[in-house]
Amino acid sequence: MKCFVTGGVGFIGSNLVDRLITDGNEVTCFDNFSSGQEKFLKDSAYSRSLHLIKGDLLDPDMIKDSIKGHDIVFHLAANADVRHGPDHPRKDLEQNTIATFNILEGMIKAGIKRIVFSSTGSVYGETQVIPTPEDAPFPVQTSLYGASKLACEGLISAFCEAFDMKAWIFRFVSITGERYSHGHVFDFCMQLIKDPSQLVVLGDGSQKKSYLYVRDCINGVLMALKKTNERINIFNLGTDEYIEVKESVRTIVNALGVNPRITYTGGIRGWIGDNSFIYLDCSKIRKLGWQPELSIRESIIRTVQYIMQNQWILNSRE
Amino acid sequence: MKCFVTGGVGFIGSNLVDRLITDGNEVTCFDNFSSGQEKFLKDSAYSRSLHLIKGDLLDPDMIKDSIKGHDIVFHLAANADVRHGPDHPRKDLEQNTIATFNILEGMIKAGIKRIVFSSTGSVYGETQVIPTPEDAPFPVQTSLYGASKLACEGLISAFCEAFDMKAWIFRFVSITGERYSHGHVFDFCMQLIKDPSQLVVLGDGSQKKSYLYVRDCINGVLMALKKTNERINIFNLGTDEYIEVKESVRTIVNALGVNPRITYTGGIRGWIGDNSFIYLDCSKIRKLGWQPELSIRESIIRTVQYIMQNQWILNSRE
Repeated sequence: MKCFVTGGVGFIGSNLVDRLITDGNEVTCFDNFSSGQEKFLKDSAYSRSLHLIKGDLLDPDMIKDSIKGHDIVFHLAANADVRHGPDHPRKDLEQNTIATFNILEGMIKAGIKRIVFSSTGSVYGETQVIPTPEDAPFPVQTSLYGASKLACEGLISAFCEAFDMKAWIFRFVSITGERYSHGHVFDFCMQLIKDPSQLVVLGDGSQKKSYLYVRDCINGVLMALKKTNERINIFNLGTDEYIEVKESVRTIVNALGVNPRITYTGGIRGWIGDNSFIYLDCSKIRKLGWQPELSIRESIIRTVQYIMQNQWILNSRE
Repeated sequence: MKCFVTGGVGFIGSNLVDRLITDGNEVTCFDNFSSGQEKFLKDSAYSRSLHLIKGDLLDPDMIKDSIKGHDIVFHLAANADVRHGPDHPRKDLEQNTIATFNILEGMIKAGIKRIVFSSTGSVYGETQVIPTPEDAPFPVQTSLYGASKLACEGLISAFCEAFDMKAWIFRFVSITGERYSHGHVFDFCMQLIKDPSQLVVLGDGSQKKSYLYVRDCINGVLMALKKTNERINIFNLGTDEYIEVKESVRTIVNALGVNPRITYTGGIRGWIGDNSFIYLDCSKIRKLGWQPELSIRESIIRTVQYIMQNQWILNSRE
């Protein structure tokens, strides 16, 4: 299979690229290297099956030239900064919504009929139905990130209807594991490595979140792609559990062997648009036979270990 | 109230502008005059309360200059061509999604806190729940138009959350009445005026649709704006009935007093992305005391009469 992977040097993208190459596929990795790291792909770098393109998803001509000849698109590139959305609202519009439109337009011109898309549980906003199934009540968006991903889902579905394409849309919880490079585990590790004596946590620590280990995530994506074939295939992808932020803090602190004074900034949300309870009903994808291998706690510990062994990643974000 | 109305020379927009001026408001009408007609505003043209701006919603600087000093935005400008979406997919992205983003960004810069938005029942896609309430199951988009309006709704909601704004979002059925200038009643009248002996109808005529008379629509919008004040106020707006296309054809043919040979092109959909059954549950807005004055049949007859008395409108679309 000739795969076109956007965001392929990013956290989830690079894990997917490695897996696709291991499985015997040809992979073109299209990325602007804005937040991804070329060294994430060091395992695959010498494979003749990997083709790297530094490109901009806001350049339709470049997409058109790069995308042709592929069998499937894995569209993972995105601005994934939920928290700082209000500081630069146009970024979500451009990097997520318009970029996705450009990919879809490029696919049509190239005759590519299949797209896999990384959406988010944030599209459910502050839903009242928890755990939240794929057909939860029509959500009201609470974050610019969630709104932009919802816009992408809508575009993808409408293109599938109009142009006889097929889509696999995955609504991820937060993903953890090797190459994880943003999010709360990252922030807490960064703070504690700088100063093990104190930790500032946004919100009151009662926010309930789900996390999923990146390799479990990729197993889920590839299994659903193999086993389903509707026009639009939508799956939640997470663990059948959640964790409070303060419990996550304890796990991280223990894994690092430190004993900081912890300050909670207060409030049920960590920031504007933060969802205080994310817990997805993943029974649909579990019915395909998928299940995660790591629990939330195990995946957090694995992530802390990865960060400690790859402290360059902390500096890469400063 | 100083009102900024986008799409204010369009079908619904111009009816709204007349009403706002009659009610004693100041109105700035911002429109690109691409499908609207300046003569729609002839009743208000001499009012000192009306200010016309020919402007482009894809020009953020122009929006910024024009929007300041207003109390509320009625954002009605849109590409409303559902049927031909696949012929120019970027149009819905630009004219609906990006234009809405630009308006929201302009509102923030100008400190305007309230927006009224014309969304559509098309955002429900091919829902299984009919009549469809506002909190129907998470929809899958089937048209580029619906997808773009959903994207707008998401943007508006997320902006309200991030920037302490309030929104009134209305999911309209198809609107009919004075100044109606696109849609099936228009198409059928145009065909029958050219040649009263035959009529071609897309689909098999069994599509079930709801229509609402434009003045009933505007009454609903203004009543909801007056009586509700949540951060995000979402209302379906339609009649508590539906009509089959073939019954609508009979109503139009009778109103025109013609007897054409009718050819149905066949299939349950009129075109790709056409929804074969639109019927919204409008109990939420009815609880505020609103109800339409005209039935679907009455509104179709009123529309046919308007078109017959204003045949220039047929030429304006050729």
